[in-house]
Amino acid sequence: MQLGMVGLGRMGANIVRRLMRDGHECVVYDVSPESVAALEKEGATGARTLEEFRDKLTTPRAAWVMIPAGITGQTVQQLSELFDEGDIIIDGGNSNYRDDVRRAAKLREKGIHYVDIGTSGGVFGLERGYCLMVGGDDEAIEQIEPVLKTIAPGVGDIPRTPGRSGDLAPEEQGYLHCGPSGAGHFVKMVHNGIEYGIMAAFAEGLNVLDNADAGVREASHSAEVAPLEEPEYYQFDVDTAKVAELWRRGSVIASWLLDLTAAALQANPTLQGLAGRVSDSGEGRWTVKAAIDIGVPVPVLSASLFERFASRGEDHFANQVLSAMRQQFGGHNELPSGDSLEAGTAKADHGGSGGDQQA
Amino acid sequence: MQLGMVGLGRMGANIVRRLMRDGHECVVYDVSPESVAALEKEGATGARTLEEFRDKLTTPRAAWVMIPAGITGQTVQQLSELFDEGDIIIDGGNSNYRDDVRRAAKLREKGIHYVDIGTSGGVFGLERGYCLMVGGDDEAIEQIEPVLKTIAPGVGDIPRTPGRSGDLAPEEQGYLHCGPSGAGHFVKMVHNGIEYGIMAAFAEGLNVLDNADAGVREASHSAEVAPLEEPEYYQFDVDTAKVAELWRRGSVIASWLLDLTAAALQANPTLQGLAGRVSDSGEGRWTVKAAIDIGVPVPVLSASLFERFASRGEDHFANQVLSAMRQQFGGHNELPSGDSLEAGTAKADHGGSGGDQQA
Amino acid sequence: MQLGMVGLGRMGANIVRRLMRDGHECVVYDVSPESVAALEKEGATGARTLEEFRDKLTTPRAAWVMIPAGITGQTVQQLSELFDEGDIIIDGGNSNYRDDVRRAAKLREKGIHYVDIGTSGGVFGLERGYCLMVGGDDEAIEQIEPVLKTIAPGVGDIPRTPGRSGDLAPEEQGYLHCGPSGAGHFVKMVHNGIEYGIMAAFAEGLNVLDNADAGVREASHSAEVAPLEEPEYYQFDVDTAKVAELWRRGSVIASWLLDLTAAALQANPTLQGLAGRVSDSGEGRWTVKAAIDIGVPVPVLSASLFERFASRGEDHFANQVLSAMRQQFGGHNELPSGDSLEAGTAKADHGGSGGDQQA
Amino acid sequence: MQLGMVGLGRMGANIVRRLMRDGHECVVYDVSPESVAALEKEGATGARTLEEFRDKLTTPRAAWVMIPAGITGQTVQQLSELFDEGDIIIDGGNSNYRDDVRRAAKLREKGIHYVDIGTSGGVFGLERGYCLMVGGDDEAIEQIEPVLKTIAPGVGDIPRTPGRSGDLAPEEQGYLHCGPSGAGHFVKMVHNGIEYGIMAAFAEGLNVLDNADAGVREASHSAEVAPLEEPEYYQFDVDTAKVAELWRRGSVIASWLLDLTAAALQANPTLQGLAGRVSDSGEGRWTVKAAIDIGVPVPVLSASLFERFASRGEDHFANQVLSAMRQQFGGHNELPSGDSLEAGTAKADHGGSGGDQQA
Repeated sequence: MQLGMVGLGRMGANIVRRLMRDGHECVVYDVSPESVAALEKEGATGARTLEEFRDKLTTPRAAWVMIPAGITGQTVQQLSELFDEGDIIIDGGNSNYRDDVRRAAKLREKGIHYVDIGTSGGVFGLERGYCLMVGGDDEAIEQIEPVLKTIAPGVGDIPRTPGRSGDLAPEEQGYLHCGPSGAGHFVKMVHNGIEYGIMAAFAEGLNVLDNADAGVREASHSAEVAPLEEPEYYQFDVDTAKVAELWRRGSVIASWLLDLTAAALQANPTLQGLAGRVSDSGEGRWTVKAAIDIGVPVPVLSASLFERFASRGEDHFANQVLSAMRQQFGGHNELPSGDSLEAGTAKADHGGSGGDQQA
Repeated sequence: MQLGMVGLGRMGANIVRRLMRDGHECVVYDVSPESVAALEKEGATGARTLEEFRDKLTTPRAAWVMIPAGITGQTVQQLSELFDEGDIIIDGGNSNYRDDVRRAAKLREKGIHYVDIGTSGGVFGLERGYCLMVGGDDEAIEQIEPVLKTIAPGVGDIPRTPGRSGDLAPEEQGYLHCGPSGAGHFVKMVHNGIEYGIMAAFAEGLNVLDNADAGVREASHSAEVAPLEEPEYYQFDVDTAKVAELWRRGSVIASWLLDLTAAALQANPTLQGLAGRVSDSGEGRWTVKAAIDIGVPVPVLSASLFERFASRGEDHFANQVLSAMRQQFGGHNELPSGDSLEAGTAKADHGGSGGDQQA
Repeated sequence: MQLGMVGLGRMGANIVRRLMRDGHECVVYDVSPESVAALEKEGATGARTLEEFRDKLTTPRAAWVMIPAGITGQTVQQLSELFDEGDIIIDGGNSNYRDDVRRAAKLREKGIHYVDIGTSGGVFGLERGYCLMVGGDDEAIEQIEPVLKTIAPGVGDIPRTPGRSGDLAPEEQGYLHCGPSGAGHFVKMVHNGIEYGIMAAFAEGLNVLDNADAGVREASHSAEVAPLEEPEYYQFDVDTAKVAELWRRGSVIASWLLDLTAAALQANPTLQGLAGRVSDSGEGRWTVKAAIDIGVPVPVLSASLFERFASRGEDHFANQVLSAMRQQFGGHNELPSGDSLEAGTAKADHGGSGGDQQA
Repeated sequence: MQLGMVGLGRMGANIVRRLMRDGHECVVYDVSPESVAALEKEGATGARTLEEFRDKLTTPRAAWVMIPAGITGQTVQQLSELFDEGDIIIDGGNSNYRDDVRRAAKLREKGIHYVDIGTSGGVFGLERGYCLMVGGDDEAIEQIEPVLKTIAPGVGDIPRTPGRSGDLAPEEQGYLHCGPSGAGHFVKMVHNGIEYGIMAAFAEGLNVLDNADAGVREASHSAEVAPLEEPEYYQFDVDTAKVAELWRRGSVIASWLLDLTAAALQANPTLQGLAGRVSDSGEGRWTVKAAIDIGVPVPVLSASLFERFASRGEDHFANQVLSAMRQQFGGHNELPSGDSLEAGTAKADHGGSGGDQQA
């Protein structure tokens, strides 16, 4: 079938390529004429303006918008003014599902279908295909199903889930109509929330392994922390790169995120040069806020989000408050390189002058 | 090579089968004569007593103990009394790595090698192979490498990590010498800690999806909780079984634990009949305790552990304390079916008589 | 000065009483004529309608609305239609500060001042006074300062903070102009978020004390959990009521919430009859959502919120998912009274048949 | 009565002073002769050696050891060799309760009583008195009750808990026999665990307030984080020092830790110069480990502990792992000053070239 694509960044362009490979026809538009020209060379029909884009699409039109979430609303608005009743506008970007709910209601008044699609797959999607979480009305989604089937990974070599039989369901081919408008991005949002949790689980566990030699390093420790009580149990110099590789085979935690971790540690075993200031993109935040709205406890997902905040120093004032309180109640002066011990247990003097600073 | 196996439960027996398939010779012992007899029929050499077991092994002996952690110490002790200098005792069970450190030191005095192996693979290990995390001295592990190679999954069809080349490293074949005695179970412990975190991430995310229709159910809500502020955004009736299946293909969170989740939800989409009282086996606890010892923050791993405790009602007294405090400061009586609202926002009376109960 | 009060629930009525005691004049309105009549007997000027209420107030009018948050907006709207330029409408209830920001902007167009006041003090406020967190423009707050001074607790017998000298600042008397409209309820929101965290800290700690006899109860434990490793260290039968009382004197954690805890445990030492289903009123949720918006990590505040959700069973589906996953990977059947042990460590059979179920 | 004191640091010396003020007789020892001499001038009986200390005590002797936890064991051992059956050795320091359990058992063999006392009160204890949590056998504690009564704060001006009547119970006077040996330090341990949670609740809440102007600062934000979605709601420039002072009067969260916070912020409103590297002293760790042992969920207490670890950079490798994973799956390069946005939402280019980097 024919699909229009607005936005020819890496993902938009790769989706177009994947579609054309499978025999679909693509009309493409981007604010960058070079991006349009590049895909024209690969066989796409280029458009220099949104009006031209509209005109080159056959009705009922189907246009996929693949641009930054911050400007998606505006482009959807422009398209809706150019499009006609029965046309379909697809938001395949990272929109907040709440925007979908509002936009769909507005477009419905004009008779235009709005379909929201959460996509996962990253830089590997061109070859692997993209996992598609779709929201919208039945009529529109039925109509665009041929392109969804192509963009999705298909069944691949993944073993069928026990208990499933007969024809392959859409979800077994990598796309799913999850519900009305917003449902696609809602499911994608939760997907990313889970992703944060899994990433954090690996990161925390590897951090424990990386410090399994604490008993060896003990001597050089400052008085900042309680002394390690049983150094004899922390004498392991674990090679985390090898362990990550190991777990890829046969272990319960084998996963694509582990594959990536193994690749990252193989390339840079000590992770030298990484500052460890971790960004977050919105979906993790929205997941926790949605969970709070509906009263669902998500301690793991929120902890993984807050770790990212803290990695960027956003915990600084809180930590200063803690230091300040400790100075007050125990006379603990914060040292440049740390802090004196609350319990005074590190003091070496024998037989007296201590036991201070109890709180 | 020849390997002795003490303990013919499902895992011990399957490891023996996997070894014999690959041409290794196995001497087997279990307190249950039936278990021994069953494996004799499959080609193993049976032993009725530990003495007989010792005698049937050629020196230097290598014996794998695969029994519950609670009784492993005792059996290792018995074997060490029967075995000679240069022999190898392998603990392939779920021991705490601290026990390994102690046992290895003790056996070293007698010249007996102690090897601790953490194994992952569950019920699928016979076919898939077991991921092996190994601790001990070089000499012993070199000697048993042939059986490790067989028990491990091997390279399988898992794509090679970018940047790796040349001969396959042991970790690419599914086994790894992680360090001195204890290192194997230490790495396995952290592996399970991570597993808890990943499982919790999926469980929490799916719980959010399962409650994405909170805006529809709103009407029937009791006054127990703050009313849903924007019900229009929670109108999704998500099929979590289909979503789990979907994510298996092309998504960033594809993983073996997701495969299992999809299988579980396929078999029982509403999870009817499950009480949701979740056990924990020790490794999750040990991981968090080890992290605390060495001062490594593990908020996600600990949250996943505490969720399990709470699922069994271990938060009960704490929750009662909270209810009791609320009764004190606001006169909030806990109702049989819940609690009155702190903010009184659910009260329907118009224009007055409210705003009470501020805290 | 004169103040109008809309809403004569416990808090509204008590504020009126506190004001009249101190010589202020009060005009009161409530949908319940009985509530109005009752306060008239105590000296207030009653009004039967909002129009009458408006007429009995001298300009520039100052009216305090003390009703459930859910209907405050509507009443503020009604008053704004009756009031004139220069008048002041105060929301002393539990509104979300976002509503204040919106309402203030709207009323500003009409020249009406909007003041939001977060109040803390609960049922003890009549005697103790109410801690007042105030948002709005300088002009309005200056005008109502006489009533704020009366409603607030005053300096009381609380020792002056070291470093403060000279005239008492408003915050030392228990009221504070925190910023523009919304700032009052924002600060109150965070106050309640902190309150949740403190309550949870006490509840969790007391739960640990309540289970400090786990080593004694061990025998009767089911196989559901990992067996207690060192029962000799958990032999304490701690009287939590006495401990809570003890900590009130001289300890670092002495606090009003501890006073309430001690009172609750004194009245009902085993907390018998409390279901432990803990409500939450909105502010805790809003605090965490605000923190997420601005990227501030609040792991403790969110954990305390999620504990409340879980106390009401909102973690149920997540726990079922965990049980279902465990059944898949280890063949762990969930028993009616719990679960079999993952590690099989509780199995009593000696010497074999175990070590199963590794994950 | 007579009490011996070993260890004349600030706390030991102040306890001696408090005892002498109330008419008790004190024999004092410290490794520092100056410390001994100083207290002799104030009326104490000094001892230059432990032998002299022993000799100057009348039998049955009672000696309080108030020295760093790390050397307490050794000193208790020395005393036990000098003391006789029926004598009492008190550990008033910050020992782990597990040490008490072991020590008491050992001393019991010699007929010497061992009493463990957790003390809270910090630098204010001389005037305020110390809250005493006591473990040991009835006989010994009965004998030392006169000194406990003096060291404790007494009933003070704290209102009696409703429901209590008659003679003042020990816990109302600030000391409590909590159970057998170890119970005192166990209760103190949990006390400190709670303290960590309360401190974190204040610190996190104040951090939210400190960032309530995020909408004003927005312009200068880097692309590191998701842009603030509704800056209009984060325009508050809150004075946290004033708010902390305000909450001291009439609010639900009034507490001694709040008093200290107010004092700290009064002295240094921006907390300038504090690095925010927060130490921890042992009790917080032991509390969480004890909770894990007995299966009690403590998400708030553990979160407060892990925040401290992270404040010292112990989350660094975990954060690096997260950055490394993100680079792998989305081609997100970590910038020196942070990270590119996952969702590309901050990109300003209009109409295309984006929507990349989905995960």
